[in-house]
Amino acid sequence: MIEEGIRIIALTALAFVGALVVTPIWLRVLESWGFGKSIRTTEETPVFSQLHQKKAGTLNGGGFIIWGTVTAIALVLWGLGAALGGFFERLSFVSRAETYLPLAALVLAGTLGFLDDWFNARKKGGAKGGGLTVKHKIVIYTALAALGAWWFYVRLGFDVIQVPFYGSFEIGVWYVPVFMFILIASAFSANETDGLDGLLGGVSLFAFLALTAVAFAIGRYDLAVFGGAVIGALLAFLWYNIHPARFFMGDTGSMALGITIGTIAMLTNTALFLPFFAAILVIESLSVIIQVFSKKVFKRKVFRSAPIHHHFEALGWPESQVTMRFWIIAAMASALGLLLYFLARFF
Amino acid sequence: MIEEGIRIIALTALAFVGALVVTPIWLRVLESWGFGKSIRTTEETPVFSQLHQKKAGTLNGGGFIIWGTVTAIALVLWGLGAALGGFFERLSFVSRAETYLPLAALVLAGTLGFLDDWFNARKKGGAKGGGLTVKHKIVIYTALAALGAWWFYVRLGFDVIQVPFYGSFEIGVWYVPVFMFILIASAFSANETDGLDGLLGGVSLFAFLALTAVAFAIGRYDLAVFGGAVIGALLAFLWYNIHPARFFMGDTGSMALGITIGTIAMLTNTALFLPFFAAILVIESLSVIIQVFSKKVFKRKVFRSAPIHHHFEALGWPESQVTMRFWIIAAMASALGLLLYFLARFF
Repeated sequence: MIEEGIRIIALTALAFVGALVVTPIWLRVLESWGFGKSIRTTEETPVFSQLHQKKAGTLNGGGFIIWGTVTAIALVLWGLGAALGGFFERLSFVSRAETYLPLAALVLAGTLGFLDDWFNARKKGGAKGGGLTVKHKIVIYTALAALGAWWFYVRLGFDVIQVPFYGSFEIGVWYVPVFMFILIASAFSANETDGLDGLLGGVSLFAFLALTAVAFAIGRYDLAVFGGAVIGALLAFLWYNIHPARFFMGDTGSMALGITIGTIAMLTNTALFLPFFAAILVIESLSVIIQVFSKKVFKRKVFRSAPIHHHFEALGWPESQVTMRFWIIAAMASALGLLLYFLARFF
Repeated sequence: MIEEGIRIIALTALAFVGALVVTPIWLRVLESWGFGKSIRTTEETPVFSQLHQKKAGTLNGGGFIIWGTVTAIALVLWGLGAALGGFFERLSFVSRAETYLPLAALVLAGTLGFLDDWFNARKKGGAKGGGLTVKHKIVIYTALAALGAWWFYVRLGFDVIQVPFYGSFEIGVWYVPVFMFILIASAFSANETDGLDGLLGGVSLFAFLALTAVAFAIGRYDLAVFGGAVIGALLAFLWYNIHPARFFMGDTGSMALGITIGTIAMLTNTALFLPFFAAILVIESLSVIIQVFSKKVFKRKVFRSAPIHHHFEALGWPESQVTMRFWIIAAMASALGLLLYFLARFF
């Protein structure tokens, strides 16, 4: 078990260094493509527009570094392991039983998100500032979630949901909509959270830390190593993404992170712990739902601006303070989630 | 082992909540005492003075929250355990073999540091801005380190230093100066590091995380629980200490953290891993030593300002960016340190 712990940390360090090396190259590519972020300037979101106008033009699409590095390392180690065996085979974390699915989720969601970022940068697509419209996004990610649900339910025969402190329930074909809801909710929540420098990167870190701890505790070591690699790449990404950000992760980052968090949660049967492991994502989504609902029904806003991180900005908290306080909440929520998980599982 | 993991997280959460509850009360106490920080305005440190003049008057002495909360929880649980047994006895982490020494270190160093903060606030003492002079500090903390060394060497019979990948060496009475050096270096390095909002709090977090992991891995569960409690209290402290800081930790915080990190390192025989577990502390101290040496010998500065965090500020990095990047370095260095520790210990 110590050996597996060493493997996890080694891959975390490797992904960190790998991502740091890749970043300057990717920055130059993004610059040469003119990959600046367009910021919405509609009258629907006056507070937001005012707070964030200064960010227009910051490079977008930096999230590729996270999933690109993890995927590249996975493929290289898998190739070296197949060719040379021994040490590299031991280090490789590509395994059908544990990491095919999260790797596929990471790459697919990352690629789809990248298309959106591409449209945004080129000011193409149906959305006002460029990029895919919300409707298009919903269709695309619903299709992706349906593909995943089919795989889990039909191919792997998953149909059990674990309810903490109550036990496991076979829910049959209801597994499909539950799975789809978790994945779509994770993806769009991550997307909503990604609104301040370093925010989604930091809170995802604690989600992956918790899920990696769970994978480790149940002996899914390849999955835990995969989690470690994501953590390493995320830390390197954060180096450039903290305020004032050198680049944004873009949809290619947020969708990849969100979908992968959802996939690992389903794989480890910890979906009902996501309100802890990904507490900030849930809070951000709820704040949007509450705001939209209140605007429509009561014709008044609950928050000065939604998602909720903009509310605190509007209250006068500096951006980096909102980010760091949300990190602290994420850290404690993940710790509490692990506490409950271990209590529920082992007692 | 899972049960011990649960205990650690439970105490982390308890200390977090406890410290959050204590903070507003302590803030009011500090305010009523007029506990503002005086900032040096000497010609020796022109860059520093210019960068930090705006911070004069911010409340000082917030570090009490960290050690006060941990100590209070330790005493309460110990008392309840002694009186009621059972659950509370199980939760209590006060044990002669494992936590008497770090608890004593925390309280003693915290109290001594508090005296300094008191002098600083009252503009008393020998230093220009108020507070103890460096000479006084060296005498006081050397005495404290000597007391610790005597305890470890004479009372506990410690005289072994573990050299990674080489083995353990009995160094006899040389253990005393080595011990004293580690403690004094830790204390003063922590003190030097404590110069930006959230900096020492954040990097200490990763030092305690690593040391807690080590304590857990070698089965010193009470010590690991103690580490968890410090982590929880530190996270709560950080909530108010991140930029723009509501208060500073002061010497009562930095000395308590530094001395305790050194003490746990000696207890777990990981002193030679401190350059990883407390990488930023070491880098900060080295930057001061290099700067002073270069000024004296070559009559020129190496860094625009020392300790090194001021150098990056002088280069134009915003304060919160320096802090967060140092956190990232601390996180990766701690991870690497753990990697080496486990490699050295178990292979």
